Amino acid sequence: MTQTNRQIVLASRPKGEVTPDNFRLVEAQLAPLAEGQVRVRNHFLSLDPYMRGRMNESKSYAASQPLDEVMIGGTVGEVVESKNSHFTIGDKVVGMGGWQEFQTVDASQRGVLQKVDTTHIPLSAYLGPVGMPGVTAWYGLVKIINPKAGETVVVSAASGAVGSVVGQLAKARGARAVGLAGGADKCRYVVEELGFDACIDYKQHADVRSLSAALKAECPNGIDGYFENVGGMILDAVLLRANAFSRVAMCGMISGYDGQPIPMAAPQLILVNRMKVEGFIVSEHMEVWPEALKELGGLVATGKLKYRESVADGIAAAPEAFMGLLKGKNFGKQLVKLI
Amino acid sequence: MTQTNRQIVLASRPKGEVTPDNFRLVEAQLAPLAEGQVRVRNHFLSLDPYMRGRMNESKSYAASQPLDEVMIGGTVGEVVESKNSHFTIGDKVVGMGGWQEFQTVDASQRGVLQKVDTTHIPLSAYLGPVGMPGVTAWYGLVKIINPKAGETVVVSAASGAVGSVVGQLAKARGARAVGLAGGADKCRYVVEELGFDACIDYKQHADVRSLSAALKAECPNGIDGYFENVGGMILDAVLLRANAFSRVAMCGMISGYDGQPIPMAAPQLILVNRMKVEGFIVSEHMEVWPEALKELGGLVATGKLKYRESVADGIAAAPEAFMGLLKGKNFGKQLVKLI
Repeated sequence: MTQTNRQIVLASRPKGEVTPDNFRLVEAQLAPLAEGQVRVRNHFLSLDPYMRGRMNESKSYAASQPLDEVMIGGTVGEVVESKNSHFTIGDKVVGMGGWQEFQTVDASQRGVLQKVDTTHIPLSAYLGPVGMPGVTAWYGLVKIINPKAGETVVVSAASGAVGSVVGQLAKARGARAVGLAGGADKCRYVVEELGFDACIDYKQHADVRSLSAALKAECPNGIDGYFENVGGMILDAVLLRANAFSRVAMCGMISGYDGQPIPMAAPQLILVNRMKVEGFIVSEHMEVWPEALKELGGLVATGKLKYRESVADGIAAAPEAFMGLLKGKNFGKQLVKLI
Repeated sequence: MTQTNRQIVLASRPKGEVTPDNFRLVEAQLAPLAEGQVRVRNHFLSLDPYMRGRMNESKSYAASQPLDEVMIGGTVGEVVESKNSHFTIGDKVVGMGGWQEFQTVDASQRGVLQKVDTTHIPLSAYLGPVGMPGVTAWYGLVKIINPKAGETVVVSAASGAVGSVVGQLAKARGARAVGLAGGADKCRYVVEELGFDACIDYKQHADVRSLSAALKAECPNGIDGYFENVGGMILDAVLLRANAFSRVAMCGMISGYDGQPIPMAAPQLILVNRMKVEGFIVSEHMEVWPEALKELGGLVATGKLKYRESVADGIAAAPEAFMGLLKGKNFGKQLVKLI
């Protein structure tokens, strides 16, 4: 019996905003496994803002997603066939399976598939707080911002997969955590469920002056650390409240992903406040993953680290869910459930 | 016999550009010394861009210069009277004597006056390559940019007191040094006298695209380190040529000192290139001064570190020389000779 694998490929590169016709759903027949290969039935696909950069041809921090190939993406799933002695049917694994229902991979390459334990941690969490987004939050917060107790840490996209972890890790280190999110529901969740000290609805602020005043109110002692996911007006407003020796971890600037200009109004503040601004990509810091995952896994397993998921249903729903993610329509980690 | 001390005080704060009426020349009679005090006849006054920031009332990285008080500034001179056992008439000293002919100071406060040896190093060099500008260059280059042999370091205001040292220290570490300066004379000096690999006359470039193309030509392997003294269009052009993991030492942004907007066009490049951008003030890093001065003093004493001075004559000439400095009319370290 041959099985069908439904896949989403990149059909064309976006001109500005991503549109549905940038993607194409295709069906492929699964071939018999070769020696060393493993077949995984993907249970969840992770959708992440970084994928937008890969869709461009222009210079980004990673290789372009090739046209007509399966879109890149993190996945969790279950081994359904194995010609590799290290993997057995039923193993739960995390990998870069892409936007498709089945992943067939030579599992002898180190790190290509990682077995995970779902006794205390739900499988999908390995795509969120105990996966790449969690380690991203951990690296920026711990290695760049490195907050001291009593300092104030601000994070944009605070209800998202990365931002939600940043604030909770900051709180765990005795810092004041202030989020920025779009809409009252998200802000309420960030404070009431995630335990941030405050959350500002940036949609209520039409200009930098207004947003900066809101930050002043919620950060009475100024801002010592900022975890940047958005850019643009939000970054400008934060810089106006930055303290001497403050640190900015630049993780993403989703407000400019479609090519909009997002100038920084007053870079001289970096000098005036003797700031450190550092861009990073977590995949280039594999050395921290074990330490980070140990902390994150422990916090999730004991219920101390809260998270939320937006789950789209079925591979065909992935493009629309991804376009929604880029507009902030998701609420928490955006996943696609594939089974 | 009482002596007259001519001083320049801050008469008013600039609105935009500095004007002559922001300063006032006053004469004060020198009072007899109290116990512990030392009187120094200032030989040279140092004029530096940071003084522009002090003239504002607005938030800067240091306290505002008070109105009607002697302008702050570094000086070198000779002890002419002493009621302090640690200082003898004839001692050569460096201190923060301000814009005046005589400094009277309680020399028991540690660090207020520093004796210097002029056997192998000219007195004025302690205001330049073996003083604050030199250590500023050293800190930004060694502690922030930290170039590896074969990397490319770019510095703006390359013929100035700080920039000239940055490039020579970069060369000494095996890096390619590329300067930016205003005018053909300065550029020729930077290459022929200071030994930079290249120098770009930014005045020949009307826009970012043109300047960026010039940087591409002179930095065929991209830019790994940038020492920022200017800001604005120059910073934008440099960022377009920045390599992955490049470092920017933010020392000054003289193009915005009169309050002009100097936005950074594409801060997302910090993320795309995983850059580190760090602002600093050398006076907050006193721990590096001994190491830095040892290297700088040795290089000057042996003639390996070249420098150039623009010398204005007499305290009354200080305001005009300072206004010239802010417009780049100086060529090398701007001093005022007071005797």
